[in-house]
Amino acid sequence: MNPTDSQLPAAAGLHPRSLERFPELAQSAADLLRKPPALLGLSEADARCVGGFMQLLDYAKGATLLREHDSVATGYMLLVLSGEVSVETAAPGHESEAVTISSLGAGSLLGEMSLLDGEPRSTQCTAISPVQCAGLSRQGLDQLIVQQPLVAARLLAEVASIIANRLRALSDQLRLYGQLTASMQREIDRLKARA
Amino acid sequence: MNPTDSQLPAAAGLHPRSLERFPELAQSAADLLRKPPALLGLSEADARCVGGFMQLLDYAKGATLLREHDSVATGYMLLVLSGEVSVETAAPGHESEAVTISSLGAGSLLGEMSLLDGEPRSTQCTAISPVQCAGLSRQGLDQLIVQQPLVAARLLAEVASIIANRLRALSDQLRLYGQLTASMQREIDRLKARA
Repeated sequence: MNPTDSQLPAAAGLHPRSLERFPELAQSAADLLRKPPALLGLSEADARCVGGFMQLLDYAKGATLLREHDSVATGYMLLVLSGEVSVETAAPGHESEAVTISSLGAGSLLGEMSLLDGEPRSTQCTAISPVQCAGLSRQGLDQLIVQQPLVAARLLAEVASIIANRLRALSDQLRLYGQLTASMQREIDRLKARA
Repeated sequence: MNPTDSQLPAAAGLHPRSLERFPELAQSAADLLRKPPALLGLSEADARCVGGFMQLLDYAKGATLLREHDSVATGYMLLVLSGEVSVETAAPGHESEAVTISSLGAGSLLGEMSLLDGEPRSTQCTAISPVQCAGLSRQGLDQLIVQQPLVAARLLAEVASIIANRLRALSDQLRLYGQLTASMQREIDRLKARA
């Protein structure tokens, strides 16, 4: 991965600051990491330790947190501390129109896949209110791995497990689509035979 | 996770043996972990270290390596060292028929999602020749995390990245299905209007 990709978006004028400098927010981040929807199965001490490698980011209402297909600013994930974020993607068959998939609030994790594989962002995330996030960059993760490898290993096992769970849900959806297209094909065949 | 889920399938008469006792196979496992299709971005030393926590498993031709929907024997992943494995799943809309999705050989990783999240197996894997595997159980992974946390963290980051990549591929497939059903719906509407 390009080292310039591994940092939080300071260039975007966000001025990330160490989360540790804000004890209440650091505690809030540690709590949120352990509750749904994040629900990383970490001890409180581990969650606090992870927080020590995170940066505080403030987004104005309407700001883009993650840009779909962005292949440059890929090296970080975000934990929403407060505010609301809409997740959008292009509608299938209507690539020019963005469709809101979901609206996420405090405790949601965003962008953890790109943090790990450095591939382009798969969704567009926009602040629909002022949003405060704790960001973990690839650089921060690398420091965590070297300085606190046990905590890093536990964090990574949890994040991998979350991604695996999402993959299972998508597989089920794909299976349903398979059934749907099979039944639509039967309908088309039936209509054609009647015509 | 249930501790009985975290072990290699000794009960199935497979008699897992420490991979370390077979230096050539241990070297082969370390090499395979670093090449495609596994392609974990580990150093050779890290890959050898992971191998030290793996077990050797021999499967006869026709044996089941992983059983789809199995919710008990979930706590391990397999690295194929030699032989061929078919991966099967129920066909969409034809749940009683198994369809071979792919055929995998040396260097393939199987079951890494269940190792991490303990959820039921998502595919059926069958040995189509005698197959030798190196297995990493949840127990082995937990020992690796405690004894070699730095190596464990690097391994987990790699495995998470592989799962993330697969999720991206599935998302693309889902998008194509979305386009397909939209165009089939237009065809159905057109045929109905004509009828």
